[in-house]
Amino acid sequence: MNIRVYNCLPESTSVHWHGLDVPNIMDGVPDVQASPAIKPGCYFDYHFRIINPPGTHMYHAHHNTAKQEMLGLAGGLIILDPNSDCLPVDRDYSLIIQEFAVIGLEHGMVKLGTYNINPLSDDLNFFTINGRSFPYTSPLEVNRGELIRVRLANPGDQVHPIHLHGHHFSIVASDGNSIHPCSRLRKNTIPVASGETFDLEFAADNPGVWPLHCHIPHHMSNNHMKQTGGMFTTVMYID
Amino acid sequence: MNIRVYNCLPESTSVHWHGLDVPNIMDGVPDVQASPAIKPGCYFDYHFRIINPPGTHMYHAHHNTAKQEMLGLAGGLIILDPNSDCLPVDRDYSLIIQEFAVIGLEHGMVKLGTYNINPLSDDLNFFTINGRSFPYTSPLEVNRGELIRVRLANPGDQVHPIHLHGHHFSIVASDGNSIHPCSRLRKNTIPVASGETFDLEFAADNPGVWPLHCHIPHHMSNNHMKQTGGMFTTVMYID
Amino acid sequence: MNIRVYNCLPESTSVHWHGLDVPNIMDGVPDVQASPAIKPGCYFDYHFRIINPPGTHMYHAHHNTAKQEMLGLAGGLIILDPNSDCLPVDRDYSLIIQEFAVIGLEHGMVKLGTYNINPLSDDLNFFTINGRSFPYTSPLEVNRGELIRVRLANPGDQVHPIHLHGHHFSIVASDGNSIHPCSRLRKNTIPVASGETFDLEFAADNPGVWPLHCHIPHHMSNNHMKQTGGMFTTVMYID
Repeated sequence: MNIRVYNCLPESTSVHWHGLDVPNIMDGVPDVQASPAIKPGCYFDYHFRIINPPGTHMYHAHHNTAKQEMLGLAGGLIILDPNSDCLPVDRDYSLIIQEFAVIGLEHGMVKLGTYNINPLSDDLNFFTINGRSFPYTSPLEVNRGELIRVRLANPGDQVHPIHLHGHHFSIVASDGNSIHPCSRLRKNTIPVASGETFDLEFAADNPGVWPLHCHIPHHMSNNHMKQTGGMFTTVMYID
Repeated sequence: MNIRVYNCLPESTSVHWHGLDVPNIMDGVPDVQASPAIKPGCYFDYHFRIINPPGTHMYHAHHNTAKQEMLGLAGGLIILDPNSDCLPVDRDYSLIIQEFAVIGLEHGMVKLGTYNINPLSDDLNFFTINGRSFPYTSPLEVNRGELIRVRLANPGDQVHPIHLHGHHFSIVASDGNSIHPCSRLRKNTIPVASGETFDLEFAADNPGVWPLHCHIPHHMSNNHMKQTGGMFTTVMYID
Repeated sequence: MNIRVYNCLPESTSVHWHGLDVPNIMDGVPDVQASPAIKPGCYFDYHFRIINPPGTHMYHAHHNTAKQEMLGLAGGLIILDPNSDCLPVDRDYSLIIQEFAVIGLEHGMVKLGTYNINPLSDDLNFFTINGRSFPYTSPLEVNRGELIRVRLANPGDQVHPIHLHGHHFSIVASDGNSIHPCSRLRKNTIPVASGETFDLEFAADNPGVWPLHCHIPHHMSNNHMKQTGGMFTTVMYID
């Protein structure tokens, strides 16, 4: 696998392949490793063989980490099974959950426009799924009778207990490692801490529109607004 | 099952049956579902069949959620086994753990009287078990030789790692789902995140008075007082 | 076992043997137990038989708890197997993770010297492993081919998801209790909440220098500095 990373930032950066057991020089932590910092305007070829089993991982910046990660330099990375013609589930969703410290807004209000973020502030007040807050998040569309997989990954600061309404799910994998069927917990709320990934599976057997959201009351809206927002989406039956 | 909910609040509300797989219209999230908001002075009949197995759940408001939940509109909901003449444990305790942001108090002090709460503040400074703080919490009375179940449920904001002194417990269920005996962890501290429930069981085999409390040092007193308080109670042998 | 605790503090204290099922009078919570507070200049002999199996525990002050614990009065306590001639692992590391609220420092800066701590502040800004922050933490030295155990214990306030680069580990014990091999999760990130301990094992099979750190971006430096610091160390191959 070869990934060429171009750095268009005004400062050096790097990429850590979170959860992948890569050679040391490809791990992306220039502060302590021979793995390079990529200077502005330069690129680096991350080159490694995938030795981990199929599963859910992440990638994110690991240089000037607090600043770059809390500004959102992270994404999902899924290892698929090359020997599998089809997925064992009917639908497969991937959700990256993040939070941001937006500054310059009065408590309890949001406004149209572009926000400034202070990546070094602990006053986290915006909560996103795949970069968007409700009602701009994408609903997870399902049909009755399907088996659904949801992959959760948290590259941010806080623990987010993700709660699904109307169904219980089985926790089938964590950090890219399958959990033995005998040890899979059945739950409706799964706390996802910084650095963790979880794969959930549930049977779509209860039609309707069902919230899927961080259960922390203060994370269900942005900047403490009254309206539902933040880290909130829905499982929506289309059939 | 039919539950008539009268709304005596000055604003609309709803009830979410957290952990119960109810029909969509009974799920209590009017922002995204056909499930109604109950206007002030009105009522709604939540009517559904219990299809989940026996276990520990919650109910709480799910309209203007951050405000109503962080003002405390939540409670426990336990599905018992109709085919069981007696419980398989000798004593069965249910603890709802919550936190509140009390305003108008000087740091490090509490005073007699009624407090004002700001449900949209992140500065959570009061910590309760079943609505009370130590020393006003109820001790869990046990006799030597008994098997004790403790049901924990967290409808609030923060993760509370509940620690029991003098004993280890088995984690027998989570979110209302029994955990297979082979997969039950034996622990003395169980983190309970917002939206989660856990059932613990332990053998009362070590007489005395034993703290059962959130292990976060700042949660063992209210408003950062020196005296022990907050989310703290005891297991007390009476025999 | 007899441990004589001398109190050289200017105030009373006590010791709680966190995770050990000791007699009530030895449990160290004078607020609610017959277990004594040790006055300044005095001592107390904690005397008890170890009845717990081999495993990882803690000890910490449990009088004026928030103040004394958040000033750092805590340590690790490991029960070894008296019948075992040698450890089943090649190397066995113990890491106590803590955080502190240092006051009097400008946001984003640290300086040489001694710091003042406010143990009752929620503004936790210094993050340590065995009392030190990176780059002053001790690397975990390993040789290729060895089996490594890491014992994590958290006596503080916050949940710290500890992430290991370049390897996956098996979670073999929690709170001093071995986890059945069939139920052991394989992960790269383990959240450790206040009061919890975890034993991890991994095979040293990927040479290099590998970060082992709290994955919360704000905990990877002290006082929100740009440089990597805080709750961060490395697994370092010496062979």
